Amino acid sequence: MRIRNKPWADDFFEENDDVVVSEPFSYKGKWQEIFEEEQPLHLEIGSGKGQFIAGMAGTFPDVNFIGIERVKSVMVGALKKVKEAEVSNARLVNEDAKDLRDMFAENEIDHLYLNFSDPWPKTKHEKRRLTYRTFLEQYESILKPGGKLTLKTDNRGLFEYSLSSFSKFGMVIEDVTLDLHELEDENNVMTEYEQKFSEKGQPIYRCTVSVSV
Amino acid sequence: MRIRNKPWADDFFEENDDVVVSEPFSYKGKWQEIFEEEQPLHLEIGSGKGQFIAGMAGTFPDVNFIGIERVKSVMVGALKKVKEAEVSNARLVNEDAKDLRDMFAENEIDHLYLNFSDPWPKTKHEKRRLTYRTFLEQYESILKPGGKLTLKTDNRGLFEYSLSSFSKFGMVIEDVTLDLHELEDENNVMTEYEQKFSEKGQPIYRCTVSVSV
Repeated sequence: MRIRNKPWADDFFEENDDVVVSEPFSYKGKWQEIFEEEQPLHLEIGSGKGQFIAGMAGTFPDVNFIGIERVKSVMVGALKKVKEAEVSNARLVNEDAKDLRDMFAENEIDHLYLNFSDPWPKTKHEKRRLTYRTFLEQYESILKPGGKLTLKTDNRGLFEYSLSSFSKFGMVIEDVTLDLHELEDENNVMTEYEQKFSEKGQPIYRCTVSVSV
Repeated sequence: MRIRNKPWADDFFEENDDVVVSEPFSYKGKWQEIFEEEQPLHLEIGSGKGQFIAGMAGTFPDVNFIGIERVKSVMVGALKKVKEAEVSNARLVNEDAKDLRDMFAENEIDHLYLNFSDPWPKTKHEKRRLTYRTFLEQYESILKPGGKLTLKTDNRGLFEYSLSSFSKFGMVIEDVTLDLHELEDENNVMTEYEQKFSEKGQPIYRCTVSVSV
């Protein structure tokens, strides 16, 4: 069971309140305040065990990163990763962000990441996919004009759906790759899941879209 | 050599002037006149040996099809295929259509097909790709408002490029599939090339985009 209670997790989060943001809704519109420097703000939805955000924060010290992960026991891993990376430009939020507009002001985010989101393959679950238009409305609101969103997934169905969903919503597809690891992008920071799947030789899909200026 | 001269081809085309349109530029704005019935007009750019257009014309008798193929020796095969199919709703044009607007009026076409176009993989040849924006300008002009374009290819680079090119141009990506033959679309008519490649188990990519209404 992934969603088991971990009472010690609360203590662990509290001990690390330099990384874990305990009252994220109170920072709406002023997220820059909790970082050491005012820098572009990048947000990952569903940070999992944190390999991506920890790696990104290390690779891009000139960017401030926020990772949201709703599963407490999973976020414990992310916190460990961020601490190990010894970075000062990453913050973690343990919330089920039903509406990101409650947590972030309009135009507050520069770049948004969706990594290996649940594909919800059944048509009846379309509305749960994180690239369904109601989510795109949220992203468009919190992203700056011209801000970007990068999606990575190994799920073909989700990728096909998302390209079309982005386009119909009016986002512009800036870049597509259908086999990320053949591309050998040195700036690509892998998630745990991505590493596992690409080691099996499965293609990883990635696209970056922009919201209108 | 594909582009060898075939003097007998001219005779063969002339003998079949019910299918081969010898003066295509004179039909600009009045293509419906050369068909038995006024029906939606679909255009294939680069018909090759004709398996697609012959198959489509048989599958969709309520549509009028025009196929353009610039290589004479290749179009001989297309003409044979159309004749074998015994369809009355397909016409062939042996031209190097540098600008489709010389051959078709604004809003004259309902649906356009690009099948396994030359990928021109080198960046310096980008302008030659049939999904480069100067070509998209032509397609947008001759397509009806809301008209569609379907691209099929086995070339990953061309497909990635084209998705982004369509989107940046303002076309809407209506549908994407990254493995057409796993989809088992009964209405999919294969080209010769497609059949050969999919038999080898290679994925075929397809997308349909629409121009603004």
